[in-house]
Amino acid sequence: MIKTPYLLFLGDAPDALAAKVAQGIKDWRPEYSIGQFRMENCNADMNLPDMDFDAAVAAGVKTLVIGVANRGGYISAEWQAELVRALRAGLDIASGLHNLLCDVPELVSVAQEEGRELHDVRVPSVEYPIASGVKRTGKRCLAVGTDCSVGKMYTALAMEKEMLARGMKATFRSTGQTGILITGDGVPLDAVVADFMAGAVEYLTPDNDADHWDLIEGQGSLYHASYSGVTMALVHGGQPDALILAHEPTRKHMRGLPDYQQPSLEELRDTALILARVVNPDVKVVGISVNTQHMSEDEATTYLEDTAARMGIPATDPFRYGAGPLVDALEAM
Amino acid sequence: MIKTPYLLFLGDAPDALAAKVAQGIKDWRPEYSIGQFRMENCNADMNLPDMDFDAAVAAGVKTLVIGVANRGGYISAEWQAELVRALRAGLDIASGLHNLLCDVPELVSVAQEEGRELHDVRVPSVEYPIASGVKRTGKRCLAVGTDCSVGKMYTALAMEKEMLARGMKATFRSTGQTGILITGDGVPLDAVVADFMAGAVEYLTPDNDADHWDLIEGQGSLYHASYSGVTMALVHGGQPDALILAHEPTRKHMRGLPDYQQPSLEELRDTALILARVVNPDVKVVGISVNTQHMSEDEATTYLEDTAARMGIPATDPFRYGAGPLVDALEAM
Repeated sequence: MIKTPYLLFLGDAPDALAAKVAQGIKDWRPEYSIGQFRMENCNADMNLPDMDFDAAVAAGVKTLVIGVANRGGYISAEWQAELVRALRAGLDIASGLHNLLCDVPELVSVAQEEGRELHDVRVPSVEYPIASGVKRTGKRCLAVGTDCSVGKMYTALAMEKEMLARGMKATFRSTGQTGILITGDGVPLDAVVADFMAGAVEYLTPDNDADHWDLIEGQGSLYHASYSGVTMALVHGGQPDALILAHEPTRKHMRGLPDYQQPSLEELRDTALILARVVNPDVKVVGISVNTQHMSEDEATTYLEDTAARMGIPATDPFRYGAGPLVDALEAM
Repeated sequence: MIKTPYLLFLGDAPDALAAKVAQGIKDWRPEYSIGQFRMENCNADMNLPDMDFDAAVAAGVKTLVIGVANRGGYISAEWQAELVRALRAGLDIASGLHNLLCDVPELVSVAQEEGRELHDVRVPSVEYPIASGVKRTGKRCLAVGTDCSVGKMYTALAMEKEMLARGMKATFRSTGQTGILITGDGVPLDAVVADFMAGAVEYLTPDNDADHWDLIEGQGSLYHASYSGVTMALVHGGQPDALILAHEPTRKHMRGLPDYQQPSLEELRDTALILARVVNPDVKVVGISVNTQHMSEDEATTYLEDTAARMGIPATDPFRYGAGPLVDALEAM
C-alpha cells in the first residue's frame, strides 16, 4: 500500500522520544529506512543520512514518512511548507498524525497536481463492530505498561521475531500508527470512536489455530489519566491469555503528566489481572519487559535480576537482550 | 448549546416507551417542556399542551426536540415534512437519533435559508483536548455501574434535584444523548474519538467553586467488555471525589453479553477505588443506587436495608425513594 523505501521526516522533534515512529521503522524495517529529514531545532537523530527531498528521490526513496508524533497531532505552517516541497520533489507522504494530510487543502491540491499519494494511516478504514465478548479460539498476549511509551510495541515485535525464529505460530497485531507503518496493517485504536474500541480489538484478533499467538500491541496505560480508556479496551477486547508487564524504571513521572507517578509493577500486575479476568478467568502475568535504554549494562542486568526474583517471573529488555525469556514463558503455558 | 425552552416532538410514537427521551425531558426539566407535538397515530402523551409550531413560537419555544425513537431506522417523509414546517415556523431542531438531521439535505437547506440550527447530539460538536490530569477545583461525583443501563443517569439527575432543593451548588453533567437533550448541553462520550475521551470529560467538568458538585452521568461499566473503556475515561477524566455504585439486582447477565455475569458490589467498589485513586487518592465510595423497578415494595426495601448494612454505606433507589441518603453522604464529606 505505502511505497517503499522511506525518507523519515523528523521535523522539529523536541526530543528523541517524540520521534519514536521513525525509530520504530528504522529498528524493525532498516531496509526501508534510506535517510532522515530534519528541520532546525530538531533534537532527534536516527543516525541515518540527512537528505533533502531531491537527494532522497535520487536515492530511490518513494515516500516521506512522518516519523514524529506531536501531542494531539498538529501540522504547523513550517511543516506544511516542507511537506509541499516533498510532494513537488516527487515523494508520496505517509502519516499517522491526528491532523490528517488530506484535511490540509494545499497538500491535497499539490498532491493531485503532482500525481502523488497522501496516506493517513490513522484513519480507521473499517466500520468496526461493538465488542461481543464471545470467547475466541487461539491465544493472545498483551503488554500492559506502567506508563505510555515504555516499549510495549517493541516487546510485541521482538516476541514475534523470536517466536517465528522458533517455528511458533505468531502474528504481531498493530494498534498504532507506527506499527501500521511498519507492518502495513492494523487498527489505529486511538482514532476509533469510543463505543467501537473493544470491537476493533476483537476484529484485529479473530479466531485462530489453537497454538497460534497474537502479539497485540499495547497502548497507553491503565494508570495514565489521558489514555487509560484505550488500554482498558485492549484488555477487554483482546481477551489476553498472557500479560506482559512493560516498564521504564528511570521515568521521573508519568509521560506528559508531571503530577503523576508510575505505579509499582506489583500494582500494575494486580490491577491488570482484576480487569483481564473479566474476559478470561485463566489469564496470567507471565513476564516483565523492561526498557533499560537509560541504564548502564550493570544497572540493567542488576535491575532485571532483582525484578525477576522479586516478582517471580522472567524479566528482560527484549530490545537489548532479546525476547527469549518472554517467549519461553509463553511456550511453558 | 441547545436553546430552551422546548416543544417535545412525539411524532407517531407507537407507545409510551418509544417516547422515553421526551419523558426524561419532562421529568427532569419540566420548566423547559412547554408543549408537545403529536402526529396522527401517536400513542404517547406527556400530558403537556398540544401545540402546533406557530403556537409554540408564540409561547416562546426555541427548539423542537425529537423525543421519540424513529421507526425503521430512517427519518420518514411524514416526519421530514413536519420538521421542515417547524424550521419554517422559526424553531431550531435537536435530535439524538442515529440518523442525523444534517444528513437530510432538505433540512440542511431549509435551516440555512431560515437561519435555524440543527443539533445532532450524537455528534461531538467540540474538538476536545487530550486530558491533562491536572487537579481541578470543586467537587465531582460519578456513578459507576455493575452493568450498563442500571440507572446511572437517573441517579445523577435525582441527586442534582435534591441538592438544588437543599440549596447546594450542583450541576448535572451529561455524557449521553438523552442527558444532552434534557439539559441542552454535554458530551456524547460514546461518539468521541478514543484519545480524547478523558479530555472530553475534563472539558465537561471544569474548575468550579470549592463547594460546587458536578454530578457526572456515568456510562457503561468497568465490567462490561464492550464499553469498559468509556467508563475508564469517565473515572480518570472525571477525577471523582465521590463514587456511587449503581446496580440492578434482577439482571440475569450483563446487558448484551449472555456469557457474562455482573460483579458483586464489593468487587465493583474495590476495582473502582483502585482506578479512581490514580487521579484522586482521597476518592470515596459514598453510596449505592439500586434500580428496583422489577422488585416489589417489600423486596426493594429489604434489599436496600440488607445492602446498606452489608456495605456500610447508604443504599436507595433514587427514582423510587428519592436521592436523599446519597446527598446526605455528599454533605457529610
